[in-house]
Amino acid sequence: MERVDIAIVGSGPAGISAALNAQIRHKSFYLFGSGNLSDKVQRSEQIANVPAIGVISGAELNERFAKHIDEAGITVTQKHITGIYPMGDYFALLANQDDFYANSVILATGVETIKPLRGEREFLGRGVSYCATCDGNLYQGKTIAVICDNAPMEEEAAYLAGLAQKVYYLPLFQNSKLDADHCERLSSPIVEILGDQRVSAIRCKDEQNIAVDGVFFLKHSISPAVLLTDLNMEQGHVAVDRHMATNIKGCFAAGDCTGTPYQITKSLGEGNIVAHAAFAYLAQQNR
Amino acid sequence: MERVDIAIVGSGPAGISAALNAQIRHKSFYLFGSGNLSDKVQRSEQIANVPAIGVISGAELNERFAKHIDEAGITVTQKHITGIYPMGDYFALLANQDDFYANSVILATGVETIKPLRGEREFLGRGVSYCATCDGNLYQGKTIAVICDNAPMEEEAAYLAGLAQKVYYLPLFQNSKLDADHCERLSSPIVEILGDQRVSAIRCKDEQNIAVDGVFFLKHSISPAVLLTDLNMEQGHVAVDRHMATNIKGCFAAGDCTGTPYQITKSLGEGNIVAHAAFAYLAQQNR
Repeated sequence: MERVDIAIVGSGPAGISAALNAQIRHKSFYLFGSGNLSDKVQRSEQIANVPAIGVISGAELNERFAKHIDEAGITVTQKHITGIYPMGDYFALLANQDDFYANSVILATGVETIKPLRGEREFLGRGVSYCATCDGNLYQGKTIAVICDNAPMEEEAAYLAGLAQKVYYLPLFQNSKLDADHCERLSSPIVEILGDQRVSAIRCKDEQNIAVDGVFFLKHSISPAVLLTDLNMEQGHVAVDRHMATNIKGCFAAGDCTGTPYQITKSLGEGNIVAHAAFAYLAQQNR
Repeated sequence: MERVDIAIVGSGPAGISAALNAQIRHKSFYLFGSGNLSDKVQRSEQIANVPAIGVISGAELNERFAKHIDEAGITVTQKHITGIYPMGDYFALLANQDDFYANSVILATGVETIKPLRGEREFLGRGVSYCATCDGNLYQGKTIAVICDNAPMEEEAAYLAGLAQKVYYLPLFQNSKLDADHCERLSSPIVEILGDQRVSAIRCKDEQNIAVDGVFFLKHSISPAVLLTDLNMEQGHVAVDRHMATNIKGCFAAGDCTGTPYQITKSLGEGNIVAHAAFAYLAQQNR
C-alpha cells in the first residue's frame, strides 16, 4: 500500500493548519478525521479571539475551515484511527480493518473529554477494543459491554449487538435509539474493568460487578496514549518539546492533546509549527 | 503613573493575538507598536496558510487584523520601546522620554533582520544609544555615528544632526533624504564598535577606523536581548518554555522572536498561549 509523507490524525484546527502547510509544501499526506471537521468548533457559541476573523459563531468558523481546505484541494479521509504502530522508519495506522502507512505522524486528536476507566489501557487487546469492525467477530455469541460516546457511532454498537449473545450498553449521549432484546441498558456508569489475563467483568458505580467477555469503547476521540502505547504523557497530555516532537521518532503532536490553553488559535499555531517540524524530519530522513 | 497588568511589546500577529485575549479577559494592557501593525505582514505578497482565511494578500490580512482589534476596542500605543527594566514585581518600560509600568511583559518584537554589531550590546549606555530623544542632548557639539534602518526614523537622525558637530551617517534603506553640511555618509558598512570604558570609534568594512563619541542605532525593531539585558537567548532567539515563559519572572515572549518557523499562524497561536500564561502569572501574584 502507498506510504505517504505524513499522517495527520485529527481534523480540528491543529490538523487543518498542519494539512494546509503540507499541501503548500507538496507533501503527500492523509488528514484523518470527520466530515464535520471539528465537533468542538462546530458547537462553540461564539469565538472572538481568532485574529483577523472578528466575532464569529463556531459553526461559521468551522464552515470557513471547510471552505479553505476545500479550495486548497484537501480532502478529509473519514476514518477512525484506532491504533498507530511505529515500524522503525515508518508508521502503520489502523482504522477498523483498513491500514495506512506514513513516514511521519502528527497527532492532533484533541482532548478526550472522558477520562480512561481504570483497567481500560491495561486490558487493551485483551478484551478491551476500540474497533467494532476489527474485533466484533471475536465476540460472536459472547457477552460484551459497549460504551458509546456519540450518536453517529451507535450504528457500530448495533453491529455488535447483532453478533453478541448479550450486550450491556452504556450510551453517553442523549436520544440513544439502539433497541434489541438481548441488549440491556446499564443504569449505573462503569467505573472499572476487571480481569486477570483478560477482561472478565465490569464494575459499575452502584458496586455491581457484571461478568463480560469483552468491552467495546466506541469513542469519538481516543487518547493518544492508547493509540500509541509507548507515547510519553505529561499530566494527561502528550509530552512535546518546543518543536512539537514527542518521544517517538517521527511522531509529532499539536493542539489540545498537547495541553492548555484549549483554544482554537493556539491549535492553529501549533498546527503550523508541527508541520514545519515534520518537514524538517522528513528532509533529515532524505524523504 | 498608572501600572497596567500587561505590556505587550510589538503589534505583529503575536502581539495582536495576545491583546485580543487580554481585552476579552478584561486585563489592563498596553499594545506597543506601529500604526501599521506589522510591516512584515503588510509586505507579504500572498498568504495561504492562515486557516479559515483562504488565500489573501499581506496588506489585506493586515487590514483585517486592524479591523478586528479596532472592533474589539483595542488601540495601539505608538511608542518605540527602547528599554525594559525588571523592578522586582513589576517592569518599567522606556520609550524615548516616556516611561510606562506593567506587572508583566509580553515580548512580541519579531525578528531583527540586522544582526547586532560587535560591541553594540557591550557599549549600550556607554556611548551606544537607541533613542535620539533620550540621549541626543548628551552629544551636543560632539561627533557621532548614526545608523538608521528605516525611512520614518530618519527624522530622528535629522534631529541628531541638529545637535552634533559631526555626524557619520549610514542609512540602511533606499531614498534617504537627510542632507546637512556636517553630515557625512559612510560608503562602507560599520562592522564593529570600538572603545574601552566608552565608545571611542567605529570600524568600517574597508578597515578604516573613525573616531566618534557615540553611536545611535535608529532601528525599527530592537533585539529583545538589548531591551532586557538579562534575558536568556538561544541561537539568537528568546529562550522560552512551552508556556512562553522566559528566564525573567513575569516576562513572556511569543512569535518570531522565539524562533522558527517565522509564520503568521505560528505567531497567532503563540500570542494566544502567551496571553494565558500571563493571566496565570497575574493570578498567582494576586493581580
